[in-house]
Amino acid sequence: MLPISNRGSLMPESPIRKLAPLAEAAKQKGLTVYHLNIGQPDIATPEAMIKAVKDNISPVIEYSHSAGNDSYRRKLVSYYAKHSINIQHSDIIITTGASEAILFSFLGCLDVGDEVIIPEPFYANYYAFAVVAGIKVIPVSSSITDGFCLPAIEEIEAKITSRTKAILICNPNNPTGYLYSEQELKQLEELVIKYNLYLFADEAYREFCYGGKHFSALQFNEAAQHVILVDSISKRYSACGLRLGAIVTKNKLVIDTIMKFAQARLSPPYYAQVAAEAAIDLPDDYFVVTKAEYKNRRDVLVQRLNAMQDVYCPNPGGAFYAMAKLPIDDCDKFCAWLLNEFSHNNTTVMLAPGTGFYGTAGMGKQEVRFAYVLNTEATNAAMDCLEAALKVYPGRR
Amino acid sequence: MLPISNRGSLMPESPIRKLAPLAEAAKQKGLTVYHLNIGQPDIATPEAMIKAVKDNISPVIEYSHSAGNDSYRRKLVSYYAKHSINIQHSDIIITTGASEAILFSFLGCLDVGDEVIIPEPFYANYYAFAVVAGIKVIPVSSSITDGFCLPAIEEIEAKITSRTKAILICNPNNPTGYLYSEQELKQLEELVIKYNLYLFADEAYREFCYGGKHFSALQFNEAAQHVILVDSISKRYSACGLRLGAIVTKNKLVIDTIMKFAQARLSPPYYAQVAAEAAIDLPDDYFVVTKAEYKNRRDVLVQRLNAMQDVYCPNPGGAFYAMAKLPIDDCDKFCAWLLNEFSHNNTTVMLAPGTGFYGTAGMGKQEVRFAYVLNTEATNAAMDCLEAALKVYPGRR
Repeated sequence: MLPISNRGSLMPESPIRKLAPLAEAAKQKGLTVYHLNIGQPDIATPEAMIKAVKDNISPVIEYSHSAGNDSYRRKLVSYYAKHSINIQHSDIIITTGASEAILFSFLGCLDVGDEVIIPEPFYANYYAFAVVAGIKVIPVSSSITDGFCLPAIEEIEAKITSRTKAILICNPNNPTGYLYSEQELKQLEELVIKYNLYLFADEAYREFCYGGKHFSALQFNEAAQHVILVDSISKRYSACGLRLGAIVTKNKLVIDTIMKFAQARLSPPYYAQVAAEAAIDLPDDYFVVTKAEYKNRRDVLVQRLNAMQDVYCPNPGGAFYAMAKLPIDDCDKFCAWLLNEFSHNNTTVMLAPGTGFYGTAGMGKQEVRFAYVLNTEATNAAMDCLEAALKVYPGRR
Repeated sequence: MLPISNRGSLMPESPIRKLAPLAEAAKQKGLTVYHLNIGQPDIATPEAMIKAVKDNISPVIEYSHSAGNDSYRRKLVSYYAKHSINIQHSDIIITTGASEAILFSFLGCLDVGDEVIIPEPFYANYYAFAVVAGIKVIPVSSSITDGFCLPAIEEIEAKITSRTKAILICNPNNPTGYLYSEQELKQLEELVIKYNLYLFADEAYREFCYGGKHFSALQFNEAAQHVILVDSISKRYSACGLRLGAIVTKNKLVIDTIMKFAQARLSPPYYAQVAAEAAIDLPDDYFVVTKAEYKNRRDVLVQRLNAMQDVYCPNPGGAFYAMAKLPIDDCDKFCAWLLNEFSHNNTTVMLAPGTGFYGTAGMGKQEVRFAYVLNTEATNAAMDCLEAALKVYPGRR
């Protein structure tokens, strides 16, 4: 018997995708499954992006530059400028999704055994990429009762050791939907300067802020060299399958270092870049319409959840996720039970167990994440289903 | 000043891409540069693949399954069957290029500090992915005078330590073009069984064999559980930019492990899978025509090289590369000099320095790699240029 690697054993199964076979079985029983478990929107990818792919006339689908097409990177400068992020095209490396951007940031800035502090709950795959890079995730807990705001800066500071090399935030946040304030960002700016740390800022949901204004870590003046922006076009344009993201940083040494990792994998995907370049020219009202749609969905979801007995869901300021506390014994059991044993009007709902988003064992057992990626009619139907489920769930607390 | 990681410092700059600025400067001086330095063919991507992309009607460019689209994986079974490789679709994980397949193989099967033995010269990015994975590449030298055949099995065996977990071969080989015989493969089969090692087999150039027959490591009976096949559609269909490859193995534990790495990065690129699925239906004569074209190019290249004084190029049996020994002091200097200081009829040639393909310091200094990816007219013109260059190169030996 050939042994696999220790890190292969350590790699977590995706907390969402491990429920997939149960969802498959539910569908085979004839149930409609509302997928609120994954950030895969039902919104159409902009026609202009698909048209750009169809209009492409290159006879050879060649490697692009390892940093991404020059034309695309130059156009991105204008995109970022609209968001008060002033950078040059040479500050950008196009990546295969934010996934690769996170991994490259870890690899380029941290060594095996180094530590990155991340407020929890956090996007589960950060932990997976930390396993790949051999680094330690040090969680610092945010609380649902505070709406998942940034933990007190002293709590973050208390986690810093000689191996700490970076802090990572996702803003607006996946899984909580929390939108960090400028003041919270400034606290982090002071901290990364004081301890000479990197700040990895995942801003994949930048456009989707409802009410508050997004403040990007790349708007820092003093800590500009500390910031590595992680970006993605997946959610922005409902184009998850393209697999395109970016690393943006004013730190030239980091760009040069990450460029070597980018060269090793040759180039980001071709058609994705063609589509993404066309997206820069979308009219500004594209986001007005999309954002209004997500805001509607959020309002329906949060109102419905909070109207259920013993359910609490803080109102998220951005992204398209919400974390709610449910009157249940164990979210993993509950989410499996929904798929395995429950149905309402021939439907059921697939949710993401809260535990998958915590680094601290035992946290999040009563929480679930909702991705409000379905239209309001489907969202309402899913809420009807959840409401009925909570009434009969054997593990209700 | 924020420090980058040690592994970031260790990462090699691409030996080919570091010459890119010199090529750019040569073009700006008005020279035509013949690119024999990189495996980017000038052959058109099959129309049927591009048509499949254009005909795609999905309104949402969604994530695919992390292992790749089910329909594509099922069709690939028939592709492999044509090559006497009998596998099931569940033995396949679609990857973002062979690049990701190599990285996932390293991550899933080896831990930090473990060793993989690779005959040198080898594809330079194996070393880069080894740095990412924190593993050691142990080179075992093949020789140009033997046409770069597999080193004596005793030499490979002598490199095995308690940390050795795998042997990696590329067949047919990049950079040498050597096509391993069934007998050589069988020697490796015995060895990986004897020492309980993985055999990573990069067979990205499977179709391009001139004369000899390709024997796949996945045709092994006894060592079937040891083999991890690394594959790519980049060269096969002249579609490098798509970034699509695969891991194929009958080892279920490895598939399950690598699947977790695949889940973390969500999915391989969407349009690439659409194009690749269409490619399975290409008529068999697609490869007849393409292979004949490459064989012509090889014949021109090898004949021209061996006709030059003090130049030796073994006749490669496959892929579209050849390594030649030139009468020069230092291939890095020579390749830079070609771009910086030389021209012939207003042209020059870009080659890949041999040193970049060796793990042993000091090896390959008189060798260069040729990628015969240009048509015969361009290849002849490039050879005229090289012949003239060797006559006047100040470092001629």
